[in-house]
Amino acid sequence: MDPIKTYIETHKERFLEELFGLIRIPSISSVGEHKDDMVKAARYLVRQLHKAGADSADVFTTTGHPVVFGQKTIDPTKPTVLIYGHYDVMPVDPVNLWDAPPFEPVIKDGKIYARGSADDKGQLFMQVKAFELMLQQKNLPCNVKFMIEGEEEMGSPALGVWCRENKEMLAADIILVSDTSMIAHDIPSITVGLRGLAYMEVEVTGPDKDLHSGLYGGAVANPANILAKIIASLHDENNHITIPGFYDDVLDISAKERSDMARAPFSLDEFKHKINIDEIWGEKGYTVNERTGIRPTLDVNGIWGGYTGEGSKTVLPSKASAKISMRLVPNQHPDIISELFTRHIKNIAPPTVKVKVIAHHGGNPYVSPTDNPAYRAASKAYESVFGRIPIPVRSGGSIPIISTFEQVLGIKSLLMGFGLDTDAAHSPNENYHLECFYKGIETIAKWYGFYSDERDSEVK
Amino acid sequence: MDPIKTYIETHKERFLEELFGLIRIPSISSVGEHKDDMVKAARYLVRQLHKAGADSADVFTTTGHPVVFGQKTIDPTKPTVLIYGHYDVMPVDPVNLWDAPPFEPVIKDGKIYARGSADDKGQLFMQVKAFELMLQQKNLPCNVKFMIEGEEEMGSPALGVWCRENKEMLAADIILVSDTSMIAHDIPSITVGLRGLAYMEVEVTGPDKDLHSGLYGGAVANPANILAKIIASLHDENNHITIPGFYDDVLDISAKERSDMARAPFSLDEFKHKINIDEIWGEKGYTVNERTGIRPTLDVNGIWGGYTGEGSKTVLPSKASAKISMRLVPNQHPDIISELFTRHIKNIAPPTVKVKVIAHHGGNPYVSPTDNPAYRAASKAYESVFGRIPIPVRSGGSIPIISTFEQVLGIKSLLMGFGLDTDAAHSPNENYHLECFYKGIETIAKWYGFYSDERDSEVK
Repeated sequence: MDPIKTYIETHKERFLEELFGLIRIPSISSVGEHKDDMVKAARYLVRQLHKAGADSADVFTTTGHPVVFGQKTIDPTKPTVLIYGHYDVMPVDPVNLWDAPPFEPVIKDGKIYARGSADDKGQLFMQVKAFELMLQQKNLPCNVKFMIEGEEEMGSPALGVWCRENKEMLAADIILVSDTSMIAHDIPSITVGLRGLAYMEVEVTGPDKDLHSGLYGGAVANPANILAKIIASLHDENNHITIPGFYDDVLDISAKERSDMARAPFSLDEFKHKINIDEIWGEKGYTVNERTGIRPTLDVNGIWGGYTGEGSKTVLPSKASAKISMRLVPNQHPDIISELFTRHIKNIAPPTVKVKVIAHHGGNPYVSPTDNPAYRAASKAYESVFGRIPIPVRSGGSIPIISTFEQVLGIKSLLMGFGLDTDAAHSPNENYHLECFYKGIETIAKWYGFYSDERDSEVK
Repeated sequence: MDPIKTYIETHKERFLEELFGLIRIPSISSVGEHKDDMVKAARYLVRQLHKAGADSADVFTTTGHPVVFGQKTIDPTKPTVLIYGHYDVMPVDPVNLWDAPPFEPVIKDGKIYARGSADDKGQLFMQVKAFELMLQQKNLPCNVKFMIEGEEEMGSPALGVWCRENKEMLAADIILVSDTSMIAHDIPSITVGLRGLAYMEVEVTGPDKDLHSGLYGGAVANPANILAKIIASLHDENNHITIPGFYDDVLDISAKERSDMARAPFSLDEFKHKINIDEIWGEKGYTVNERTGIRPTLDVNGIWGGYTGEGSKTVLPSKASAKISMRLVPNQHPDIISELFTRHIKNIAPPTVKVKVIAHHGGNPYVSPTDNPAYRAASKAYESVFGRIPIPVRSGGSIPIISTFEQVLGIKSLLMGFGLDTDAAHSPNENYHLECFYKGIETIAKWYGFYSDERDSEVK
């Protein structure tokens, strides 16, 4: 048996126990009360990196949650791989929809169920374990650095600055990231495009207090009705976004690229069945994969106002709010889109209400090269483990920091993700397949060898 | 000094203490956990009625929260007054907007601040105290019955049936209700019209779980966006309601009636200033008072869906819901309107989502006569206390049970309310003016004498 496989088989129970220790720390970055948990998770990772064989590993303070940085230098003349991941997770509400407590991992039907099991603690941990494996087997052919942040789910507000301040320490040839998905457990794919993000909040205020809807209803603008009008107006009858200038920077996709994309296996019935919908929705003139891959979107992520409790309350609410985010495609800029959004909402808001627009966080879209040694090595590694050449795909998700890395550090990223669409990342009952976890470790471990070879042959 | 005034002056502190005892019981009818408080409040009122001099007073069970019934028979040949009120109150959220705990009454700037201080515990208590006063002064010229329910804020679901079952016990010549407002503390008015109510809830379901808005956004209908579209479509550009058939039963109001209404004092600046809005809103072609008095309306009372916590969560919500109520005018029927609403929402819902419509509660509109002894007596009583003849007005609010009384018991109601628009009924910091409380007791006490005289002169 292959020594990589043997090592994984021998240590698989310990790998899980170590991962579970990390999952049990409820490191929700966007909720203030979990501040101490962020530090706890960072320290846990420092211990794990030491244990795996890093020369050094430390918790670095930032203007936000801390960053974990660790490294192992084999030979300064060899290439250096910078591994990026995040130890923060999404909030868990609505918690009543979870079958088990979100921070107590359980294994069921070959999957780990817990918040962060896939996004990104489980995936990040594959990187730590592949590193350990290669090191223990004295097979690590390059230098490795780890940069693990605690604010990815908030849009990485502090990491860009921290990278700028630590540019030398972070010097590397390629950034390796496991935080994306494959097409299916037996159809490997590599994400070569990510959408950007602009996340906004709109607050509509009518009267300065909740009013009796009988005494005032009909004579006072209802902020919930006005907010509904505003949101409704943001898509036209073809589900195009109506914000002036919104599509100005979107690049045309060639017919060739679109037909290449169309070759990725896709079953509409399966797509609908998986999330239990009768009909799909989307921008006229585009396929499902195009709608999530190459087109920008606008979605309400949350809406609230007035009485939302049991029974009825005849109130005309003082305020109504919505969280609205837009996914962006290459060449769109989150700052410009935030500005266009804000200006448009202020323009269309009627004088009967006051409207406040807040920009939460943004991220640039990213397109990853497929013609470099790192990608070619990945293609070989996936093929050797899964028996199929991975398909390059564009994902609808965003990892805002990836394009920042390129701008600040001048380093390209390779997105070797092993998640599945069914992982329920960000949702109740998030889960991660054990098969993906172990195959991921194997693929990453093999990637090191292929990468070293590809680099060598390129130099020659 | 007038003996009525003297009695009030002598006992005013005790009156308040007794009222506060009732206010301190958090009898929120629509919230299940307050079930025991409902019984507690009912029992408190029974003790108060006994103390005030009732021959009998008891808690009656119903299919919902209990009804308090008490009576005093002076002389079976004399007219009988049935006093109606409610001991239940609205929920208190958002509780963080209250300056003090809602169920701990405090007096500040001549007002009682507490949930229920105006609606309806304070107003109901004026009736109890006026009854006590007349009885103690041996001046009560008619028989008095009290019927105090605990489900008014839920639309009185049980009281109609209870009235039918207790029709003989409830026999009376007039129903007296203090649960409405006056134009101003120095401009008395009597409510002669009430709007009806149809209270609905709409739940829009997209995917069967919350999804990652990046991976799915753009290809799956977002229930919050769809709900916004639905709500937005319910008013046209003139703020007319678009539900087919909605206005079919609305009666035309004569130019004479409209010009009579227009004579009620009204300051647009004051109206806007009081609730801190820059511009009013409403149906084209109608004045503010017409919009709240004689026109039906549709308002969102609450809306919720997706992530509503701190920070950001990039979720495509599975569900979004709204509570939507319509105020109805004479000749509109809540059951018909509920049906039209439900059918319309189902018609316009796109096939990309599933929509559920629930009817919460309804109530018929009511128009009260101004040419009967009870109204004439009220006019005289207000004039003698306030120095001005009260103005008959149509209120935008609803007391759904009032038209049920007429249908089931065959008795007309007289709405002697002493609330003010500034009372913040149903809102945080609900309050009731002490001046209104004491003048209300005085006016009601005087009304008994005038009513008796009017009846006598009518019989002659």
